[in-house]
Amino acid sequence: MNAAAIVGVQLGDRSYSIQVGTGLLDAPASFQGLPRGSGAVIVSNDTVGALYAKRLGAALAHVYPKLAVVLVADGEAFKTWQTLQKILDGLVDAQADRSTTVIALGGGVVGDLAGFAAACYMRGIGYVQVPTTLLAQVDSSVGGKTGINHSAGKNLIGAFHQPLAVVADVDLLDTLPQRELVAGLAEVIKYGAVADDAFLAWIEANLPALLARDKPSLVQAVTRSCHIKASVVGADEREAGRRAILNFGHTFAHAIETGTGHGTWLHGEAVGCGMAMAANLSVRLGLIDPAHAQRIAALVAAAGLPLRAPDLGAAAYLDLMRLDKKAAAGALRFVVLEGPGRAAVRTVEPALVTATIADFLG
Amino acid sequence: MNAAAIVGVQLGDRSYSIQVGTGLLDAPASFQGLPRGSGAVIVSNDTVGALYAKRLGAALAHVYPKLAVVLVADGEAFKTWQTLQKILDGLVDAQADRSTTVIALGGGVVGDLAGFAAACYMRGIGYVQVPTTLLAQVDSSVGGKTGINHSAGKNLIGAFHQPLAVVADVDLLDTLPQRELVAGLAEVIKYGAVADDAFLAWIEANLPALLARDKPSLVQAVTRSCHIKASVVGADEREAGRRAILNFGHTFAHAIETGTGHGTWLHGEAVGCGMAMAANLSVRLGLIDPAHAQRIAALVAAAGLPLRAPDLGAAAYLDLMRLDKKAAAGALRFVVLEGPGRAAVRTVEPALVTATIADFLG
Repeated sequence: MNAAAIVGVQLGDRSYSIQVGTGLLDAPASFQGLPRGSGAVIVSNDTVGALYAKRLGAALAHVYPKLAVVLVADGEAFKTWQTLQKILDGLVDAQADRSTTVIALGGGVVGDLAGFAAACYMRGIGYVQVPTTLLAQVDSSVGGKTGINHSAGKNLIGAFHQPLAVVADVDLLDTLPQRELVAGLAEVIKYGAVADDAFLAWIEANLPALLARDKPSLVQAVTRSCHIKASVVGADEREAGRRAILNFGHTFAHAIETGTGHGTWLHGEAVGCGMAMAANLSVRLGLIDPAHAQRIAALVAAAGLPLRAPDLGAAAYLDLMRLDKKAAAGALRFVVLEGPGRAAVRTVEPALVTATIADFLG
Repeated sequence: MNAAAIVGVQLGDRSYSIQVGTGLLDAPASFQGLPRGSGAVIVSNDTVGALYAKRLGAALAHVYPKLAVVLVADGEAFKTWQTLQKILDGLVDAQADRSTTVIALGGGVVGDLAGFAAACYMRGIGYVQVPTTLLAQVDSSVGGKTGINHSAGKNLIGAFHQPLAVVADVDLLDTLPQRELVAGLAEVIKYGAVADDAFLAWIEANLPALLARDKPSLVQAVTRSCHIKASVVGADEREAGRRAILNFGHTFAHAIETGTGHGTWLHGEAVGCGMAMAANLSVRLGLIDPAHAQRIAALVAAAGLPLRAPDLGAAAYLDLMRLDKKAAAGALRFVVLEGPGRAAVRTVEPALVTATIADFLG
């Protein structure tokens, strides 16, 4: 197993590389080869910024002629209009122009906010993702989805805006609370479930090493996850079709997150529970054996992710899921499993969904 | 001269058509051939909505299965975060999904707001421009620039998001105040100045007919303006190079608009004065004869556009222009004329700019 890897995301003139490894944050080489322009603006949150912004700034000082830092509050509850405006105001204050690069240092919230700010500022400037959570390293920092939450739905407002590069240093996971590491594993499990059964078996075998933050295992998990995501995104950047399989578990998860108030459940926790629910739904549709759904649920549980859904009432679940971005004209659509390592999108009758929800309550 | 025309904008899978003519608003045929999806949401302002939303709705009812209307306040002062949020909330209330089409019915402000809302909603849904001002018909409704103002600069926040179609009905100009018709002529003159000297001569000859709102003359002016814009945008969608010539007069204009407070000067009025200033600057750079700058100024004046700039102080002008999106690393960049029907972008010394500003004060 390597301790470092590079994964390419092939998107024509929007192609970029993901560096995965250790010791990347402090190495100016991690940021070479990017357009230098007139400077860079680091966007981070209070927690992560205090830990890493200074070190990142020292590395970037070798590359960019001018550097500024914008810090926002930490947490999903701040993925809002107000925070987005604060970042845009920070870009104005830093006299950012069309050649300025935004550097997103943080988890998914910072990456989504900073990426959307970069998408909107002067109708689009470049940005680099430096993800500091496992979830961001394997998922949200790759693929160009950016945005903010709306009271009516998560990520309802946003843009597709690909980063110039992603620098995923697993050393940064040293300071991640265990609950967040576990939440990130939900997305790792997802890749195995929807696209690579051998990877799913590898996760089952290496779960103790991953939970103990063994560096080579983490590099391997992040690299393989990014490979799968890059290949799916490369074939369907704007989610017209196949990319939707990466939302396995997410329709249930978004309902859980919105229904309980953003920030109560971690996204990965909701995805963990949501994947078990989607696997259950797949059994009800006659697509997979009960044993395979049980295997998904067992891995979710072994990782330390929740298997019990909040009791919002079935009607509230259905309403929330009808507003999901995958929904079309009020129909309920889900990513379901068609077998080990295979997934597809299906329209599902409400009665089946209600039965699945009932299985996960109480 | 035709009373109707179709202009194509060639942008690969983002190509679309501009229909220019009379009687288009009430004809369902104007909106055939668009994806029907789950419905449409008309976005307009109080003034235009009261005049035309009902008629447009009647035509659209033949095409879309579901229709909603969102009205916002009228005026450049409302091209803000707050109004954008109101439109996005309206889309949520209308249960808009990824297949919903936004129909922007109004001038540049409505088009920019509704287009940006469509760009952000669920990371991008389709929209159609139904421009109701001359300025919007010849300029802002074509080319995919959308956005809102920031206290630090006009259109500082936005996105490139091409419409699905543009329907430019010159009958709608019947209700346009004369001051706004005149403001729209500034952009028509601009196309002649930067790209087509024969068109400039046509405008000079037909100015009385245009000011009297002769329909065939208006159709001709809008069609030829859109042809020029489409050809420039087709070659440079994201303004990496040549598209910048369409900003002739706009660097001065944005400084005038921001310096006097958005809404005090109409955009076209500021562009009129700004074009005369940019032509003056072109003479100072030795690029054109004084006689050609005089010809531009005379046409601006004959159209009824202002030739006297507000006295903001030279330093304020320079500061405002350094924040212009075309600026790079603090340098002052302008679109200048290189001859009749020819323009280019140049970096200019502040002393020359100051001298030009002095010529247009008091």
